[in-house]
Amino acid sequence: MWRHVTPDAARRMLIAAAHAFADKGYHATTTRDIASLAGMSPAAVYIHYRSKEDLLFQISKIGHELSLSVLSDVPGKDPVERLSNAVSSFARWHAEYHTTARVVQYELGALSPEHHATVVELRRGIEGRMRSIIAEGVEAGLFDAPDLRGATLAVLSLCIDVARWYQPTGKRTPEQIGALYADLVRRMLMS
Amino acid sequence: MWRHVTPDAARRMLIAAAHAFADKGYHATTTRDIASLAGMSPAAVYIHYRSKEDLLFQISKIGHELSLSVLSDVPGKDPVERLSNAVSSFARWHAEYHTTARVVQYELGALSPEHHATVVELRRGIEGRMRSIIAEGVEAGLFDAPDLRGATLAVLSLCIDVARWYQPTGKRTPEQIGALYADLVRRMLMS
Repeated sequence: MWRHVTPDAARRMLIAAAHAFADKGYHATTTRDIASLAGMSPAAVYIHYRSKEDLLFQISKIGHELSLSVLSDVPGKDPVERLSNAVSSFARWHAEYHTTARVVQYELGALSPEHHATVVELRRGIEGRMRSIIAEGVEAGLFDAPDLRGATLAVLSLCIDVARWYQPTGKRTPEQIGALYADLVRRMLMS
Repeated sequence: MWRHVTPDAARRMLIAAAHAFADKGYHATTTRDIASLAGMSPAAVYIHYRSKEDLLFQISKIGHELSLSVLSDVPGKDPVERLSNAVSSFARWHAEYHTTARVVQYELGALSPEHHATVVELRRGIEGRMRSIIAEGVEAGLFDAPDLRGATLAVLSLCIDVARWYQPTGKRTPEQIGALYADLVRRMLMS
């Protein structure tokens, strides 16, 4: 997920920061911890990032942009198929990238007001995309969602929470979780 | 939720710890922070608790016991009504006690192996109660859940994640969230 981050040193630091934040929490992590985990000097961090908060913002921004892209141009011949594909991809994404997803979701409060506003904008985009897939199905008479915003909230929440409970050593693969959730959500919304 | 914790000083410390952990994370919180928040001396903490980890364990244990009790003897004339009541109470609980619920869910990894085992046992109880309510409905031919464990996981996850996104200043009250979720889950599982 970090392959577009350049140069190599900046990428290694972002990966190190994501792991440290997931492990100890944002507030208990120092830039020294991050540098050490990335095998660099503490001063090297400031060549690429303004602060520890800037590292959190970059992780959060990239995480939200990627999960937003999962909901872009979702394929499917009708709204039912598009909803299934959207849910299975979004749930799978939160299993595969559970470490980053946890940091992104649980440390929102540590962002500066300006950075928080940027992330909230991305979150509105995610919500808007899922909502329009559901709305399409309602308009076509295929889904029944009297509370469209409530249903959208529940569907996104269900997928996001995969990041909390998912364990790579667990019984279900990200693909199986995606398939299970697509089926449950389809039943929840179909009229 | 802490009314059974005695004496008063022990209760004040637990409440202070829950707020500090929710605010800064477990690892960045010191017993000094907790004492100061409770208006006590750092040494006073050790009269009631063995360590910072012991405070986390007590919070986690009480939190899990209370959320387990929400799923005990759920009223309802049939499995459909019992499922609705279970989901609405469990979701509502996670809205009302969102601060504690976040600590309990996100800091599991900071518990000692022994304390972690105790909490895992309580989590099995929670899972077992929700599963048996769903299983009752399946046996009565009212619900369709080919993957019973998967459906139980999804229902619990949906309710628990309310603690992440719920805001007391938000548009929906805990009661409204409970009613919305009861309706969505009923539709997801009814045959």
